[in-house]
Amino acid sequence: MEKDYFVNRVSVRNFGVRHIEMEKLTDIIERAMRAPTCGNMQLYSVVVTRDDEMKTKLSAMHFNQPASTGCDVILTICADFNRFTRWCELSNAVPGYDNFHSFVSALTDAVIFAQQIVTIAEMEGLGTCYLGTVNYNAADISALLELPDLVVPVASLAVGYPIGTDQQVERLPVAAVVHLEKYRKDSDEELLALFKDKEECDANKKFVKDNGKQSLASVFTDIRYPKAMNEKVSKDFLKLLESKKFL
Amino acid sequence: MEKDYFVNRVSVRNFGVRHIEMEKLTDIIERAMRAPTCGNMQLYSVVVTRDDEMKTKLSAMHFNQPASTGCDVILTICADFNRFTRWCELSNAVPGYDNFHSFVSALTDAVIFAQQIVTIAEMEGLGTCYLGTVNYNAADISALLELPDLVVPVASLAVGYPIGTDQQVERLPVAAVVHLEKYRKDSDEELLALFKDKEECDANKKFVKDNGKQSLASVFTDIRYPKAMNEKVSKDFLKLLESKKFL
Repeated sequence: MEKDYFVNRVSVRNFGVRHIEMEKLTDIIERAMRAPTCGNMQLYSVVVTRDDEMKTKLSAMHFNQPASTGCDVILTICADFNRFTRWCELSNAVPGYDNFHSFVSALTDAVIFAQQIVTIAEMEGLGTCYLGTVNYNAADISALLELPDLVVPVASLAVGYPIGTDQQVERLPVAAVVHLEKYRKDSDEELLALFKDKEECDANKKFVKDNGKQSLASVFTDIRYPKAMNEKVSKDFLKLLESKKFL
Repeated sequence: MEKDYFVNRVSVRNFGVRHIEMEKLTDIIERAMRAPTCGNMQLYSVVVTRDDEMKTKLSAMHFNQPASTGCDVILTICADFNRFTRWCELSNAVPGYDNFHSFVSALTDAVIFAQQIVTIAEMEGLGTCYLGTVNYNAADISALLELPDLVVPVASLAVGYPIGTDQQVERLPVAAVVHLEKYRKDSDEELLALFKDKEECDANKKFVKDNGKQSLASVFTDIRYPKAMNEKVSKDFLKLLESKKFL
């Protein structure tokens, strides 16, 4: 059963209207707090958005994508060195967590925690979807949620009861991802072979056609994740890290 | 049963001598590849270290901590935009993933994937432990594993069969981590109250005494994660990101 869950899971973008009880949500979060964490510092926080007005505002920062507008609750999981730093200061210890390495540690902690929430929530019959847009408007999200210094949003989860219409998409073969002892140096032909099934599946052929492109790769480079956009987000996100004292 | 697993899990640093079958490991990794991933780009790779000589070298880069030297296998999970970028280039699409935002996306993908491996491996009866030291010697690890441009190690997992001697440590109360609608502004007293049980538990009192310090916080700031070390690792890690073309 557990085996089936991991193999069959799917991210959910289509939700029903049923609300998630706050008690259930808290229980999931509390259990997720048993996930591994750096030095048991628990360098994360989660802001729960259930209020309609807040959800409307927050969804706009996620470009009103259907998973965001249609879900019941948005969880904004933050890399958080604020709580720990304040505790150090109040204990007359001198913290040193206003730097990039500490951000990476907190980001890692926060994503581990987010993924534990995903697994537990899904096993409890809920649907979840990461809103990858969290980095795009991180400064606006940070302002809306009133995040203090050393707290940065790094993973947003849309959560709700699924209606069961979401379909699995393809994945690369395991050989693409696993390297034995050293990183494998694939030839061009070997690398292209790893992407062959991905390119040839019907759903992706349709995706290329619907986007009016010649290849699957160009849908990513020209439409979904283009260079200019990535560079703008990089600049904005580094600026946010600086303003939050992580740089 | 699943509920119990999440509540009772513990990171494992004490392993038996039994080897993990490669088939079992591959199966776990393949199932973990169903974890959520940014735009289905699967921006991660895993380097499997099983060879004795490689494991000795890699463990030294993790300061020969017992979890590293005692485990059966070390998995080095990498943020990887190399495979995807090469595929774009070979498809005559123009990639734009040599920037900080793309690193953050790949890091997030890699950590989600790592945590999915942890959960599946533990449910299969294995023990795991993140080696937080991965960031400390990331350049050396990168050289040993022959990681190319746009590939950076971000999560290392020690994996093996547990001998059952690892104990759970305490966690903060759920109230410390959950914020409703907006980030809560705790007073000093409220914040200290959240850390009270942590400071007063016997294991941590012993930890403070063994380290010859006056407070739990100062064990972290003076011994475990001091400012000067965090700043050095920040500098080294940013340099690595630059050399790997993510900055």
